[in-house]
Amino acid sequence: MSQATATPTAPADRGQCRTIDPISKIDHIDGYWQQRVIAEMNDYQFKVAKLDGDFVWHKHSDTDETFIVLEGELHIDFRGAPSGDGTIVLHAGHMAVVPKGVEHRPRAQTEVKLLLIEPHGVVNTGDGEATERTVELDQWV
Amino acid sequence: MSQATATPTAPADRGQCRTIDPISKIDHIDGYWQQRVIAEMNDYQFKVAKLDGDFVWHKHSDTDETFIVLEGELHIDFRGAPSGDGTIVLHAGHMAVVPKGVEHRPRAQTEVKLLLIEPHGVVNTGDGEATERTVELDQWV
Repeated sequence: MSQATATPTAPADRGQCRTIDPISKIDHIDGYWQQRVIAEMNDYQFKVAKLDGDFVWHKHSDTDETFIVLEGELHIDFRGAPSGDGTIVLHAGHMAVVPKGVEHRPRAQTEVKLLLIEPHGVVNTGDGEATERTVELDQWV
Repeated sequence: MSQATATPTAPADRGQCRTIDPISKIDHIDGYWQQRVIAEMNDYQFKVAKLDGDFVWHKHSDTDETFIVLEGELHIDFRGAPSGDGTIVLHAGHMAVVPKGVEHRPRAQTEVKLLLIEPHGVVNTGDGEATERTVELDQWV
């Protein structure tokens, strides 16, 4: 893909003052776990992705992160959470906040459409080295 | 209402690491435009409310604010937005970010169930004096 289609720059309005349909945005994304920005609120970004299969265990040491499920059934495994190790299940319309520093692994047994909210600059694979699953920041759709 | 039921304090986990169903939270709120906190992400709060009728024109000088419609049809009127004056319409599943400093008025011709995202401390009626429509901060549901 050309740079222009792979990493469209932020619109001048940062996705503000307009109606956004997150699910319809996902229809324009190729591939799973390819999160794309759809709007900004202060220094936070709203991102969408479609998910399938297991993601990698990771954590974000400096920030909480919010998951809102638009379609499908998302499992999030935790290690070392205040509530202990475990798994939560989110169906369409459900949300969960993962606290900073808590290891987590999102899993989708069938396709999930997801809305993510987190500060600008958060890397999808968490702290540490980039991997083949790391998505470049600030790609809009 | 007693203080205990009107302003339950934040849970120790701040609504994190668990599955939250925002729509079912709204079933526990009496009255329209009575926003209640359901979770926190860093210094931001997720709030839910059911809406009916016109709200007041207001603005938040220091912060953007995000609306996600869970049920119903929400109109948001703008004055002095970068895109000019106007109205956007959001149906279930749609979202919009209102930029800081932009006057806006949410309107619901029939009942709307809403998820709001904004920093802690934002007053629902905006800058200036509290009015009869101002909701006390940090009431959880």
